[in-house]
Amino acid sequence: MDSGDAVDRLVSGLLAGKTPSLARLISWAENRDRRTERVLGRVFSRTGSAYRVGITGPPGAGKSTLIGRLALRLRDRGDKVAVVAVDPTSPFSGGALLGDRYRMTELSEDPGVFVRSMASRGSMGGLASATEDALDLLDVAGYTYILVETVGVGQVELDVAQMADTVVVVLVPESGDGIQAMKAGLMEIGDIFVVNKADREGAARLKGDLLSVLELAEPRRGWRPPVLETSAVRGDGIEELAGSLDRHRAHLEESGTLDRRRRDTLRLRVLGETREELVRRLEEGSGDLLETLLDKVEERNLSPHEAARRLANGALPRAGEDTPPSTPGESGE
Amino acid sequence: MDSGDAVDRLVSGLLAGKTPSLARLISWAENRDRRTERVLGRVFSRTGSAYRVGITGPPGAGKSTLIGRLALRLRDRGDKVAVVAVDPTSPFSGGALLGDRYRMTELSEDPGVFVRSMASRGSMGGLASATEDALDLLDVAGYTYILVETVGVGQVELDVAQMADTVVVVLVPESGDGIQAMKAGLMEIGDIFVVNKADREGAARLKGDLLSVLELAEPRRGWRPPVLETSAVRGDGIEELAGSLDRHRAHLEESGTLDRRRRDTLRLRVLGETREELVRRLEEGSGDLLETLLDKVEERNLSPHEAARRLANGALPRAGEDTPPSTPGESGE
Repeated sequence: MDSGDAVDRLVSGLLAGKTPSLARLISWAENRDRRTERVLGRVFSRTGSAYRVGITGPPGAGKSTLIGRLALRLRDRGDKVAVVAVDPTSPFSGGALLGDRYRMTELSEDPGVFVRSMASRGSMGGLASATEDALDLLDVAGYTYILVETVGVGQVELDVAQMADTVVVVLVPESGDGIQAMKAGLMEIGDIFVVNKADREGAARLKGDLLSVLELAEPRRGWRPPVLETSAVRGDGIEELAGSLDRHRAHLEESGTLDRRRRDTLRLRVLGETREELVRRLEEGSGDLLETLLDKVEERNLSPHEAARRLANGALPRAGEDTPPSTPGESGE
Repeated sequence: MDSGDAVDRLVSGLLAGKTPSLARLISWAENRDRRTERVLGRVFSRTGSAYRVGITGPPGAGKSTLIGRLALRLRDRGDKVAVVAVDPTSPFSGGALLGDRYRMTELSEDPGVFVRSMASRGSMGGLASATEDALDLLDVAGYTYILVETVGVGQVELDVAQMADTVVVVLVPESGDGIQAMKAGLMEIGDIFVVNKADREGAARLKGDLLSVLELAEPRRGWRPPVLETSAVRGDGIEELAGSLDRHRAHLEESGTLDRRRRDTLRLRVLGETREELVRRLEEGSGDLLETLLDKVEERNLSPHEAARRLANGALPRAGEDTPPSTPGESGE
């Protein structure tokens, strides 16, 4: 079959580390193409060796430049580096994003570096799932370091940042940025804090503010987040950032926290996927019941909550019966 | 029972239009207190008379001032007005928001005006559901006009804006705001566009840009969105905005579109509630199976997608059996 052939071909390409196959498969993941599940069913056993770093912070903090510098640094010591920029609010900016930001010659001409943006096609939950799939694909393709940049400061960004093994929060000395970070929940998720554009006025104060907030918090599982100063444009502080990443990674590995952390991430991911699966079944399998219930709600004879409860009770077993049992004999397709 | 008593008392207060009862019930909705379902089960039949206007646009567009002016205008002609500000990104700003923005003496001392902010307690989907519940409660309490302000430009804001009967998009003449609006999907959801701070340079150009984009789009169900100019601070253009709202409402009612639109909103809401219900059952009922599946995923013997499929298959019927059938004899509690 055509589609099975396409899966075979792309899986082979992926395992051989071929960039076009990888790029194509990431597009499938981004579009929530269900063939992604078959691909990952085959290659998931080969995941687990890439290290994932989430890099987040408000727009204009210089995250992209910092990531570019960091990628070069990691390349220098032999890592294969992937950069994934997740941009939930701007479905149209995909192309521009890459064009504007990562057109650093050193990066774009290096076959050991893969750069990709992920944009929302539809639901936000879908974007988080798509990104998880993309990270697995990059892992299978042999990238040892994956830098995930999240653009913006909403819930999706927090979710995506928390997929990472290490979360780096990047801030700049600018009016109220520290406050913004606290409001947006960034203080709780950062393992490493970076004051970028540290030559600007206010850098020392921002660093002091961050340190005092961090001091009030309990160290999480024995790690107290450092606050570094960088100037990404000038390349200052990148060495220290790479060093902090190594230290955090070593801490996670030695304390056994890495496995626990990854299991927590996995739990959220499986629950998220299950939610997606249930919603799909709901939408496919509950048409008549839904409309009947809606009639009643419209006549105000039933509350939306009671309708939802009946739909949850009624739709799923039926949808389950209609769905053929999952076939483990995937290769036979 | 205590809890039943509380429900009784608050429902009576709500039906009598008492503000403290209303405020308390909205807090329940905001906290996803499950008693909200019982409250709405009793009073949902009394909803349907309030008219809902969603007001959205980028931060700094002057939405709050505009809403304050509009609320006064609607009060003048006898409407009971509620303002709900939905702020998904800043769970901590609830108090400040109201304090800063709606401390207009005319509004805060008027018993015919109710102002409230809704902030995220946990999931984003939860915020949309909580807001739906709050709008119903306001409807039951006798508010005839509900202005829903969404702060920010993400997916939740779009979802919330689309709960409304009329969606007003507010922009200001500022670099790239028109482009931002198009990117963020605002052009597709606006029924009325407002260029606020219209005395600023660039207002005419923004208006022209908006008109030409709108001209390219098909009119939706016979309505071509107008582009108005206002200066909320000076009170200019508010009369015209109120007039446009009336015209859009009349258009919806006369064309039968209002019922269709509300049914679409209701469909999304019931599906959203069902999703919440399923996730709840999933989290409550699938602990052991989830952990067993996670063990396999952790050993890379199972992909997260396959785990999700098995969880969806396995957890729900079991959770369904454990759940007692919903009791229509609610009053007997």
